[in-house]
Amino acid sequence: MICEIICVGTELLLGEIINTDGAFIAREIAALGFSSYHQTVVGDNPDRLRAAVREGLTRSDIIIMTGGLGPTCDDITKVAVAEVFGRQMYFDEATRDDIESFFNRIGREMTENNLSQAMIPEGATIFYNKWGTAPGIAVSGEIGGKMKYAILLPGPPAECEPMFIECAKPYLESLSSDTIYSLNLHLYGIGESGAEQILRPIMEESVNPTVAPYACEHEVRIRITARSKSLDDAKVMCHEMADRIRAGEVGEYIYSESDTPDDAKNSMVMTMIRELRARGMTFASAESCTAGMISARVGDIPGASDVLLGGIVSYANDVKMKTLGVPEEVLASHGAVSEECASYMAKGARAVIGSDIAVSVTGIAGPGGGTAEKPVGMVCFGIADKSGTYTETKYFRSKSDRSKIRRLTTAHAMMLVIKRLHGEI
Amino acid sequence: MICEIICVGTELLLGEIINTDGAFIAREIAALGFSSYHQTVVGDNPDRLRAAVREGLTRSDIIIMTGGLGPTCDDITKVAVAEVFGRQMYFDEATRDDIESFFNRIGREMTENNLSQAMIPEGATIFYNKWGTAPGIAVSGEIGGKMKYAILLPGPPAECEPMFIECAKPYLESLSSDTIYSLNLHLYGIGESGAEQILRPIMEESVNPTVAPYACEHEVRIRITARSKSLDDAKVMCHEMADRIRAGEVGEYIYSESDTPDDAKNSMVMTMIRELRARGMTFASAESCTAGMISARVGDIPGASDVLLGGIVSYANDVKMKTLGVPEEVLASHGAVSEECASYMAKGARAVIGSDIAVSVTGIAGPGGGTAEKPVGMVCFGIADKSGTYTETKYFRSKSDRSKIRRLTTAHAMMLVIKRLHGEI
Repeated sequence: MICEIICVGTELLLGEIINTDGAFIAREIAALGFSSYHQTVVGDNPDRLRAAVREGLTRSDIIIMTGGLGPTCDDITKVAVAEVFGRQMYFDEATRDDIESFFNRIGREMTENNLSQAMIPEGATIFYNKWGTAPGIAVSGEIGGKMKYAILLPGPPAECEPMFIECAKPYLESLSSDTIYSLNLHLYGIGESGAEQILRPIMEESVNPTVAPYACEHEVRIRITARSKSLDDAKVMCHEMADRIRAGEVGEYIYSESDTPDDAKNSMVMTMIRELRARGMTFASAESCTAGMISARVGDIPGASDVLLGGIVSYANDVKMKTLGVPEEVLASHGAVSEECASYMAKGARAVIGSDIAVSVTGIAGPGGGTAEKPVGMVCFGIADKSGTYTETKYFRSKSDRSKIRRLTTAHAMMLVIKRLHGEI
Repeated sequence: MICEIICVGTELLLGEIINTDGAFIAREIAALGFSSYHQTVVGDNPDRLRAAVREGLTRSDIIIMTGGLGPTCDDITKVAVAEVFGRQMYFDEATRDDIESFFNRIGREMTENNLSQAMIPEGATIFYNKWGTAPGIAVSGEIGGKMKYAILLPGPPAECEPMFIECAKPYLESLSSDTIYSLNLHLYGIGESGAEQILRPIMEESVNPTVAPYACEHEVRIRITARSKSLDDAKVMCHEMADRIRAGEVGEYIYSESDTPDDAKNSMVMTMIRELRARGMTFASAESCTAGMISARVGDIPGASDVLLGGIVSYANDVKMKTLGVPEEVLASHGAVSEECASYMAKGARAVIGSDIAVSVTGIAGPGGGTAEKPVGMVCFGIADKSGTYTETKYFRSKSDRSKIRRLTTAHAMMLVIKRLHGEI
């Protein structure tokens, strides 16, 4: 079945917000095994919206729409879909009650215009919204002699994403008798084209499960997707393929696997936390060029407090000396961006914070501050634990992008902690 | 004139990458005064691509396309556009030389498939690409008796964004005899709907300049856009409108203004840095629930080192006591999430790091850890400077979203520093 995404919102057309819903849903429907050839963004103009719905339902079997369900939207998305499917709108009491109870829960009063959100096309499946007020709906029916489906979800990602997972995904799965299961392998230290070249024979011969590498910011992810009558079978198929890939040439780059989008997004930091937790170890950081990004990234993960004790942001050399105890001579003779300094920083953070392991970074994120000897993108790393210290220097190539150098530095620092825990460095 | 965006790429349809090009260009064309009613994402299938180009040029005057220009794309985007405009493709020697010199500059060898990037539709304007290999192009001509324009840019944001600014923007400006100037007013402490309600009369009566409020993550931005024959006139028109808005009811919420996208994106942190710099003051942070996000955000800005000395990430209570000197009795009697603790944290960071001012945050980001008395979303803030300390408590409502609570906390901490420097708290 072919599925396409239509995102509704003037704020998307004006570029005020980035269309993360589109990417999220695209990823999910690809993992469910649907083909997708178009995505559209359209404003909340009734004529253009109706045209987009008609066109989408002409070229695809399923349209998934986000946005245009808010209390000030005059319901135009729902009305447009109802019109194309030839349905009347009715006021749904159960939906009204659900919206009212949401307002009670957050302790605010329901306004009159929220009631319009309880207007529903006849025969629609209603997805109650635990994260906001606008319910999602699914409408199905014959158009031009073929069964067509429209799924409508609210626009805010904090509502759209959980509602997709909890409501739309089971609905979509019910349209097929097969179950889909996806497993991600996370690779570090190899590029997408490198991984693709090695995997090409497997990718080409594999129909079920399918194998596809994706480039993420600082890593490559291989997604294995199997389709079967039973979830257990699909899992077995994925894991057999994973074993085969692990045994091959890319195996040495695989540091983790995941089978949920949230785990996949956080695979590096969650792997580090998991490995620390398994050893009952605590963590600290000493950060110069990243200025707190490493510890902040660890703090992103709920429950990180059992491993994250804290960290020292030592942007200025004075802080490196006074708080972390980097000797003045080291700064004078080797400079702040040196493995010597990184080593003292890691040892200092471990001692000051009192953690079992500490990682340090000091580098030149640019755009200024680079020299021939120490170019922009040069970063020194240090690890300190009970066995001693480890240091290394990386030269990140993204010379023009301060922000990217800092994000790559953050990922590499976490990778070094993982390797140290594995006894690899 | 009506302008629409067509983004080409299977990786967009599969959700592997988020369509930031679409949002960036949408914002830019809105600021240039073009109307935009559609955005489309289409894969690199020649038939569907040609259909998308035809459809776009039917309903809009200008299409801006990104992606599908890479060496492995077989030129299908350029070929599709050439076909719709009825042009032949030719091999452009100057473009070949430009691609070759790019490879020389980065010290890599040009491969055979890069030569296909020098194929250009006849009569096209060529935008040489300083940031990569694929040139951009603009094609114009009559279709169905009307002048139509197609602008093609490479897909990677690091190429697309600068090429839009340096090449496509002047080209688009040349299509109109007017100059456009936009000024952003940045507001904190008022919601979008509140600002809109107050501004509604001005918004409705204003045609040139136009006035529109936008909700950003933690603030509201009012964009004033003027169109005139001269840039100076447009600037004057915007500033007159800004003065009028400042004099009105929303005036008290305005903390800054900006007239470039980059400044707008970083307005809060750049305002804080500017205010610190103007006073020759240095900055430090003591962070619990944000775990380094505040200092990392300051470190995002190139040249932040003249104000940012460093910070202490004190996630564990032990670090709050040992490194920041929060008395054990304070933690025992008031808890870590208390204004008392925040006060000691700020004083501690100021003393340990040796900065002129320090800000502290300690709160409950969730999802766990909340109680009836101290719910998830409760954050205590502290400021320490030479005049003493200031503390306050905020209750952020985004109860379900740990990440959002931490981002709002980061913004509020910076806002408190700005207010403290202004003598408002």
